[in-house]
Amino acid sequence: VRTAQVFREKSGINVLTGHRVERIDANGGAVTGLGPEANAFAIPFDRLLIATGAAPIVPTRSGYDRPEVVVVKTLEDTHTIKTRLHSGAVTKAVIIGMGYIAMEMAEALRARQIDVALVKPRAELLPWMDAELAATVRRELESHQVQVHTGFDAVRIEGQGGRAAVCDPGGTSLPADLVIVAVGIAPNSALAAEAGLTLGPAGSIAVDPRLRTSHPAIYAAGDCADAFHVVSGQRVWIPLALRANRAGWAVADHICGKPVALQGVAGTAVFKVFDLQVARTGLTAAEATRAGFTPAAVTISAPSRAHSYPGGTPIQVHLVGDRRSGRLLGAQMVGREGAAHRINAPAVALHAAMTVEQFSQTDLAYAPPFGPTWDPLLVAANQLVKKMKEES
Amino acid sequence: VRTAQVFREKSGINVLTGHRVERIDANGGAVTGLGPEANAFAIPFDRLLIATGAAPIVPTRSGYDRPEVVVVKTLEDTHTIKTRLHSGAVTKAVIIGMGYIAMEMAEALRARQIDVALVKPRAELLPWMDAELAATVRRELESHQVQVHTGFDAVRIEGQGGRAAVCDPGGTSLPADLVIVAVGIAPNSALAAEAGLTLGPAGSIAVDPRLRTSHPAIYAAGDCADAFHVVSGQRVWIPLALRANRAGWAVADHICGKPVALQGVAGTAVFKVFDLQVARTGLTAAEATRAGFTPAAVTISAPSRAHSYPGGTPIQVHLVGDRRSGRLLGAQMVGREGAAHRINAPAVALHAAMTVEQFSQTDLAYAPPFGPTWDPLLVAANQLVKKMKEES
Repeated sequence: VRTAQVFREKSGINVLTGHRVERIDANGGAVTGLGPEANAFAIPFDRLLIATGAAPIVPTRSGYDRPEVVVVKTLEDTHTIKTRLHSGAVTKAVIIGMGYIAMEMAEALRARQIDVALVKPRAELLPWMDAELAATVRRELESHQVQVHTGFDAVRIEGQGGRAAVCDPGGTSLPADLVIVAVGIAPNSALAAEAGLTLGPAGSIAVDPRLRTSHPAIYAAGDCADAFHVVSGQRVWIPLALRANRAGWAVADHICGKPVALQGVAGTAVFKVFDLQVARTGLTAAEATRAGFTPAAVTISAPSRAHSYPGGTPIQVHLVGDRRSGRLLGAQMVGREGAAHRINAPAVALHAAMTVEQFSQTDLAYAPPFGPTWDPLLVAANQLVKKMKEES
Repeated sequence: VRTAQVFREKSGINVLTGHRVERIDANGGAVTGLGPEANAFAIPFDRLLIATGAAPIVPTRSGYDRPEVVVVKTLEDTHTIKTRLHSGAVTKAVIIGMGYIAMEMAEALRARQIDVALVKPRAELLPWMDAELAATVRRELESHQVQVHTGFDAVRIEGQGGRAAVCDPGGTSLPADLVIVAVGIAPNSALAAEAGLTLGPAGSIAVDPRLRTSHPAIYAAGDCADAFHVVSGQRVWIPLALRANRAGWAVADHICGKPVALQGVAGTAVFKVFDLQVARTGLTAAEATRAGFTPAAVTISAPSRAHSYPGGTPIQVHLVGDRRSGRLLGAQMVGREGAAHRINAPAVALHAAMTVEQFSQTDLAYAPPFGPTWDPLLVAANQLVKKMKEES
């Protein structure tokens, strides 16, 4: 999306494309590797930033290398998909995975009238999501004729009459002109690991709030690095764009002598599935238990607009709190309107370590076109306060 | 909207309609007044809740009692307006006032193809709003053919050829088949004042966080009562539905022996003007100065969706912070999408007394359909942090 020349001319940054770093010599202060004509290079550094990102996981299973199979990784992959679609040869697609990338691909393919099936081995559509909210997402997919095959482990991909067939161990197979693999991503941390840097969750590169790795001269930022969770205080790997971007700036500031420490992440995320907005922040009840909290949770449904105002649709809110401290731990929302941006209110509350009771008293906006007098988040918070009191 | 009978039968609440309280005997513990047949009544109390609300201000000016003039106060007033509209006799309307009630009425009348003019004496459309944001609201009104006459003091209303004419002192007059007066509201606090209760700002009834007036047995809640502002700590009168509702519940809890103390209000408000969402929370720069802060402010414009996602429109954000403490003091937003619910994030930050820097580090949601990687609020917060550092 931007050439090396632009970086050079506009910002005085020497971007060396085609240079593959093969080794970080942390104590020697240099990176070494191979250049465009297989020429060895060695570049010394005072400070090094590792920003190697993450890459899609490609299962090493039979047939995943067939020509019908595409992993959504680079701009080129999307061009490959587009070319296939434009050729008219694609009428059926199978997407392996059910994360938000998988769902966004499903939506994009349905917009082109292609039959779409989503498959994954686990029983839950979105395992981190409250079951009632996840059921709404499933209905949304199915109402747009997306086949949702949970409990389908795509152990191999075969060829069958000029088409691919995605097979589970039980002998069921789904025909496909196009197979998209979107089963998650993994941090590109091999170089860091080989250099002896400490790794964090999921093999990400462990960094402190100043984005420093375990070596004082080396920073890591972006999808390759971990972060502290503002609720649990624990290291987490939640590779999302805002944190990646923020961490990049913070490293630059830090190297240039501005002391910057990042607060950490709340794990706030949002995505669109057809006409639904799906949002989360903080911990799920299961994550809260693992982090040592004693969670209580409620799930409510409230209208997106005042009763008197036409066009309202339900918003579902799932809220998690800690019985012992009273703290708000997490929130999830699903709705046709008003879910995406509403999630930012509990996200800020998590940064402030608010209790559910404190959050329940916040002065949220009300006007009939935009919500009921008691915002759905407040309805949920009031119920959670009650539940936590009754059961504690 | 609900009869006295329903209250009696469903909740065991004895609702006495047609009973006008004329005096509160605070120390005697009774209210006295006149019943439906002008019969005197006296009702003793252990605890009294004053929930007399607020009423629209009707200027005592010449011609404001003409038959063309309606004050939007009761359900009946709206029926009166509807009947007039249905009679087809209304082709031109003048609305006196430019608050959100005035704007909502303007929108409702334009939807019925009626010519609408808004008038007010002051020069600013929305005096509390940053000038850039207010200009966007004015453009929105004008692009829907609403005439905006700021600096027009409607000193009298005359009759003129079977129509009303709204006149300013300079001799300009605007013809109207319908004149709507929406110049603001005032708390109904006369009874409380006569009973010797302490009054707060704008003649509202002063209450503590437990909604107790200056008399220990008497509470006040709703649009007649004041509140503490979470940013300034000062008493304010911001009559809005959520606080009114919340205060009512809190009084009931308190009287029933549950200790409840309300946090106060952030002054969060939102309204719709045609296709625009207009939102605010906390203090304006002027209010901040009056409250003893040393405010700095920025105004930015950012797209409502990611660059790559079609259909984005600008969101304007105005953010106010305190130079001395670094605290976030207030926010204002105007946009076609995503402004109404986004305002809740800074509202929560105000409750938590966050600094602008802390707010700038919050993990807000990002997905291309719903915003850029850096949420417009974060773009504004980053700029405000910079500005506060440079100038302090």
